[in-house]
This record gives sequence, structure tokens and C-alpha cells, in this order.
Amino acid sequence: MSGDIAGEAAAGERHPPAGMSKARLEAFSDGVIAIAITLLVLDLRIPHVGGRSLGHKLGEQWPSFAAYVISFLTIGIIWINHHAALRRLRLVDHSVLILNLLLLLTIGILPWSTALVAEYLRQSSGQHLAAGVYAGSFLLMSVVFYALQHHTLLRREHLLHDDVRASDRARIARRASGGLAPYVLASALAPVSAYATLAICGAVAVYYAIPFTLEE
Amino acid sequence: MSGDIAGEAAAGERHPPAGMSKARLEAFSDGVIAIAITLLVLDLRIPHVGGRSLGHKLGEQWPSFAAYVISFLTIGIIWINHHAALRRLRLVDHSVLILNLLLLLTIGILPWSTALVAEYLRQSSGQHLAAGVYAGSFLLMSVVFYALQHHTLLRREHLLHDDVRASDRARIARRASGGLAPYVLASALAPVSAYATLAICGAVAVYYAIPFTLEE
Amino acid sequence: MSGDIAGEAAAGERHPPAGMSKARLEAFSDGVIAIAITLLVLDLRIPHVGGRSLGHKLGEQWPSFAAYVISFLTIGIIWINHHAALRRLRLVDHSVLILNLLLLLTIGILPWSTALVAEYLRQSSGQHLAAGVYAGSFLLMSVVFYALQHHTLLRREHLLHDDVRASDRARIARRASGGLAPYVLASALAPVSAYATLAICGAVAVYYAIPFTLEE
Amino acid sequence: MSGDIAGEAAAGERHPPAGMSKARLEAFSDGVIAIAITLLVLDLRIPHVGGRSLGHKLGEQWPSFAAYVISFLTIGIIWINHHAALRRLRLVDHSVLILNLLLLLTIGILPWSTALVAEYLRQSSGQHLAAGVYAGSFLLMSVVFYALQHHTLLRREHLLHDDVRASDRARIARRASGGLAPYVLASALAPVSAYATLAICGAVAVYYAIPFTLEE
Repeated sequence: MSGDIAGEAAAGERHPPAGMSKARLEAFSDGVIAIAITLLVLDLRIPHVGGRSLGHKLGEQWPSFAAYVISFLTIGIIWINHHAALRRLRLVDHSVLILNLLLLLTIGILPWSTALVAEYLRQSSGQHLAAGVYAGSFLLMSVVFYALQHHTLLRREHLLHDDVRASDRARIARRASGGLAPYVLASALAPVSAYATLAICGAVAVYYAIPFTLEE
Repeated sequence: MSGDIAGEAAAGERHPPAGMSKARLEAFSDGVIAIAITLLVLDLRIPHVGGRSLGHKLGEQWPSFAAYVISFLTIGIIWINHHAALRRLRLVDHSVLILNLLLLLTIGILPWSTALVAEYLRQSSGQHLAAGVYAGSFLLMSVVFYALQHHTLLRREHLLHDDVRASDRARIARRASGGLAPYVLASALAPVSAYATLAICGAVAVYYAIPFTLEE
Repeated sequence: MSGDIAGEAAAGERHPPAGMSKARLEAFSDGVIAIAITLLVLDLRIPHVGGRSLGHKLGEQWPSFAAYVISFLTIGIIWINHHAALRRLRLVDHSVLILNLLLLLTIGILPWSTALVAEYLRQSSGQHLAAGVYAGSFLLMSVVFYALQHHTLLRREHLLHDDVRASDRARIARRASGGLAPYVLASALAPVSAYATLAICGAVAVYYAIPFTLEE
Repeated sequence: MSGDIAGEAAAGERHPPAGMSKARLEAFSDGVIAIAITLLVLDLRIPHVGGRSLGHKLGEQWPSFAAYVISFLTIGIIWINHHAALRRLRLVDHSVLILNLLLLLTIGILPWSTALVAEYLRQSSGQHLAAGVYAGSFLLMSVVFYALQHHTLLRREHLLHDDVRASDRARIARRASGGLAPYVLASALAPVSAYATLAICGAVAVYYAIPFTLEE
């Protein structure tokens, strides 16, 4: 890392990071999200040969499959939201780059929290904490995404495309904050029931994914 | 994940997701498919040092190499098909994004099913189930791809480029459904012979890959 | 995978895959090559805690570091070549897509062959075969790249940009065939000396990388 | 790898690698950096079931989490800098491609050095060396980035956009060299205190990331 971040940011003012710059931000974000979503498969283990039947062993792995599907859909939906959020931007500045980087950091950690809940969901010891970490990692991601939305919509209006109206800005930011609620609930329920936590995370993913069927 | 998926989708109507939007869908899909295809290499193990000769041990690994090549070609061909399918689209809507996400989910799982069949192909116990899961994962991918094709070609015609004729639309959708047949067969044969299942999957991959030689 | 590959290819004639199509081929290839080159790091192991000093253990891992650098540079250089090869193309057809896919298949396997030579280079048993597999995987990649070059330059001239002259075409294809020689030599020397094989592969990588210093 | 690197480079003169060429360099670099940053998650282990409580085991893993965050931010910031450096370029030549490849090589190795320091930070034996390798890998990356900056800004001015002024060029290069200092310090302190080394690396990451808060 060089010492010229500040210089670069300043230089950025003189080379306004239009088009290309935003394109690279999207490309990089797409890359990280695509990799995180695909690395989830590494959490699916190949059962050891020998012992019980393969069918039995795969059946016992159901938490891994459930967590794979939930996390895949959730990351996919955050990607769709991210895509919509960036579409409203005309320009990006250093603050957007850093908030976006923090968002990617929280997305990047999901293959780990997914593997954790898959491993511990059926353990008597650790299942509550693992579920809490799982829902908590989604909550953290949502909080940072909300911060990104709030920052661009309400504090960096000059970065937005002209056709994003003020009334829409407030409404979209408000909805983004509403999106935090289910993960707060899921995290809060972790000490009570790890299965309930997983179920809520799954329900959120399905809820955001299904509209397309209804609107047909 | 924020709560504004619905809001975003609605916003999408006002910021019609032309060009850029489709470009990001392609970029993200390319990313996931490229990663899934490259992660296949992680299933190729390095034989432990010691014991029999390296040549012997590599020879015993042949199911891994066969599965690598078959899965690589199959994912590569679905990428080519995906590319052709998206090229016909002028716009994407939320339903296309979600169907595409489900397609990526089924592609993302292939490194696991590939590793599974490689590990169990020569085991007396589990080989049939592993082969069934392998062919079944290709079948699932094909079904979702068919759903995406059917949806865009026959139910979302307004998303297509103007030069995609009605007669072509029906024909392409029909062919996509025909593509399911070999994987139905391969899955059905798994309880009989895991090798036959693998052979069919391999034949499909080669069949779709060779035309270029013939057309010269 | 759907059954409409042939249909798609035919459709491709009607929707000539200009610009966009080539752009996606590049994006997908960039993705696969970028992933393969980055997965090399997974071959670098973290020494187990305990026993000899960390310095000693890292020193013993030198074949891993050497193989990492050689493979990284080699993949990087094939990427540069791939980039130059595609820049000459105006259009891509199904045959180019498939040859490109085969090239990616051979690149995708390199993290495995790199790990293999790193693991076996200092073993009395297996070192020659491992080195042969390593050089052989580079040779295979070069052969497929040569086939792609030959195919596009000499058999699919209509896909090329107009400013690629006939005399250049033959010359470039000839040079590509010349590039096979060092890997033939490296493979042939594997039964004699695994170190010599590694040294040749390394020399090739450095040779193609240094010109920039000389031309200054 | 083919033998026509030199030929390609020469060909490059005749097909000046404007726009597209630079776009692919960015795409490939984005890919490698995005993958390296996302692979960091693989260093986060899932604690083995059994024994102490999960909370206790996760607490003991804190060096992994700290190293994850530090490396993630550092790679993210080098990406931002890389992005700014390439934005100034109008064209790329072979020398830029190779320097960029070397930069990617040093970035690609970071998941390994991150895992190394995470594993050894709390070991009495090896912690100093591991910390030195960690800071040293950041230093190496910074040196190559500085070389890339120096090369493009001061020795390949014809590759720059016209609006990059001479006074800015010297200033930016000077700042890039200043960016080496903290990593020299962090590396030098490794034999004294591995924790101090980690703290400096973390402080650098935070320092470059926070400006956005201050500038509001």
C-alpha cells in the first residue's frame, strides 16, 4: 500500500471518477460477492468413506445444505440490492469506496459464519452461539449496507443521478433500516433456539426472492 | 440485506435497468460460473507421500480426473448457453435476476457433487447414490436453465430484443426442454451402474463441445 | 445444460456475436485465469506448530515458493498472450468458444500440478513423475493455445480485425509453435532431473517477463 | 505459453492497446485482487467440536480475526490505489503489464502470510518470524506498487492521460515512496514484538480508511 491515498483522493477530485471509476467499483464488488457466494460450496464436505451408508451421512449433513441455500440466496439478494444502490450513483468518492469495502468485508466473512452454524447447529454445546454469530453476521452486513445507503442517499446527494427524487431517497433509506429488523430478531432468538434463528434467516431470503412469482 | 428489495424493484421500473444493469448481471454470472469451474481443481488431491508409487496413486485417482473434465466441459457449455440466452435479452427484471440466481446456486454446488462422485465412484457402498447425486445436480441445473429460458422467451417477451422472432422463441424453448432428457436418463441409470451415469454425462459434454470440428 | 447448443450456435449467426459477445468471452476467461492464478496460494501451507523452528520449516518449503512464483508468472504470461490473441479478433464463433474453454481447462489444472511438483520435488520416489506432470501441464496448455492461435489466424480469418495482415498471421502462428519447444525439452528432461525441469520452466517464465527491462 | 510474447509485444505497437486493452488489465487485476481478498476467509477456521466451549475457542482465535480485518482493509486500500494509478493511464505497454503482474503476485501471497501470522502470533516459537513475514509481505507489495507508480509516472509519461501534470507526477511518486516507511518500521520491529508489528499494520489500514469520516 502506498502512502498516497490522500493524494489519490485529492487527485480524484481533479479526475472526477465518472463512468469508468464506478464501473471498476462495480466490477470489484461483483468479483468479491461472486467469490464469497461460490466459496460457500467449500463448506459442503464429502463424507468419509466407510461406516454408515452414504445416504445416512448425507442426511446428517442437512444443516450444511440448508445453510448453503440460505446464505447463497441472502448473498444473491444483497448483490441485487447493491446493484440497485450503485445504479442510482453517478459518481463515487473515497467515502463510498471505503463504506463499500466494509460491506464487502462483512460479505466476505459469510462463508465462515455459514460453515460455523452448519457445524454446530446440532451440537448441544455451541449451537446457540453459532446461530447468534450466523444471524449476527447477516445483521452486521445489513447495518453496513444501511450505512452505505444512508450515506449516499442523504449525505452525498451530489453523487446521485439527477432523476433520483428527494422523496424517494428518504423512502429508500427508511426501508433499508426496516430491513435490519428480522436480523435483530434472529440474533435475539439465538440463545433461545438455534433452529428458530436459522428459520428466520431462511424466511427472509425466501421472502425477498419470491416476489417475482407473485407479480406474474 | 436491506428491506428495500421491493422498493428497489419498484425503483427499477423508474430507472429501467437497461444496458448497465444487464452488464452487471452478466459480470456477476460470469464471475460465479468462472469461480465454480475453477474450484473444480480443488477436488484433485495431491497423493500422500509414501507407500505405493506416485504413478500408481495417480492412476487410482482417475475418477477425479474424469469428473474434473466432464464437469469443466459441462459448466463451460452452460456458460456458453447462458451467454446466448442473455444476449437475446434487452432488459432484465427482478424475476430474471432471481431465476438467474437460482441457476447460479445449482452451478455453485457442482464442485461438491463432482468431488462426491470422484470419491465414491469406486466404492462398493455409496457409488450409486453418489452417481445419482452427480447426474441429479446436472439435471437440476438444466431444469432451472430451462425455467429461465421458458420464462424469458415465452412469458417476458417484452424483455427480448426486437429481432428475436416468435417462431424462434418457441423452438429454442423446446430444444432447452429436450436438453433435460440425457440427464433424466443418467439419473435413472444411477441405481444400475454408476459408470453408465458418468459415461452419459461425459457423452453429453463431448456432444455439445464437438460440433465445431464438424462444421469446419 | 440445455439441448439448444446447436440452436444457439445457429441463432448466433443471426445475432452476430460482435462486441458484447467477445467482451463476455474475455470477462469469463479473465475470471478463470485470475482465479487459477490466485488459487496457487492455497498450495502454500502453514507449517504445523511445534518441532523445529519456523525458519527451518519455511526453508524446507522452498519448492512450494519456487513453484508458486514460476506458475504465477507463467499463468500471467499466458494471460498476456491470450489478451493479445483476442485483441486481434473481431468476432468469436462456437469453435473459438470451445477451443478457449479447452485452454481454460488446461489452465485450471495448474494449481494441482503446481502443488504436485511442490510436494514431490524433494522425494526420492515420485519426483521425476511429478516434474513430468508439471512440465507436461504447461506443454498441454501451450499446445491448446497454439491450436487456438492456428485456428483463428489461419482457418477463421473472417473473425480477425481487418488490420491483421496475412504475413503477420503466419508469423505469429509460427512463433506460437516455437513456444512449445522449451516445454517439450522440460518434459523430456523430467526422467533425468526434476530440478532441471523446474529450472527450465522457471527460465521460460523469466525470459518472457524480462523484455520490459531491456527495452527501456 | 506460446513463444510469441515478443511478437505480441511488437504487434501491440501496431494495435495500440487503447481502451479495451487497459480495460482487460483492470478486469484481470480486479479479479485477482477480489479473489485474494475473499480467500482470506479460508484462514478463519471452524473450531473442532468438543472440549472447551465454542465461545472460548472463538476467543482464542482472535489473531485470525484481527489478521483478517487488517489484511482485508489493506488489500482493499491497495485496490483503491491501483484503481487511481490505472485511471491516470491512457495506454499500457508490456512493461506495465509485467510490473502489474508482479504486483498481483505479491498481493496473491497475502492470504498465506495472513494465515501464517494468525497461526503463530501467540506461539512462543516463531511469532517474531511470522510477524516479520507478514509485515514483509506488505512491504514487498508496497515496493512493487511504488515501482509501478515510479515507472508509469516518471519513465513512461507517454502512457499517461494528458491532464496529469508534471508537478503532480513527481508529487504522487514521492508520496508512494513515503508509504513504504510504516512497513519498514513494522518489519524492523518484528524481532522485538510481534504484537507491535501487527498493531502498526492495523494502524496503517485504519489510517488510510478513515479520512472519509473526517472530511464530512
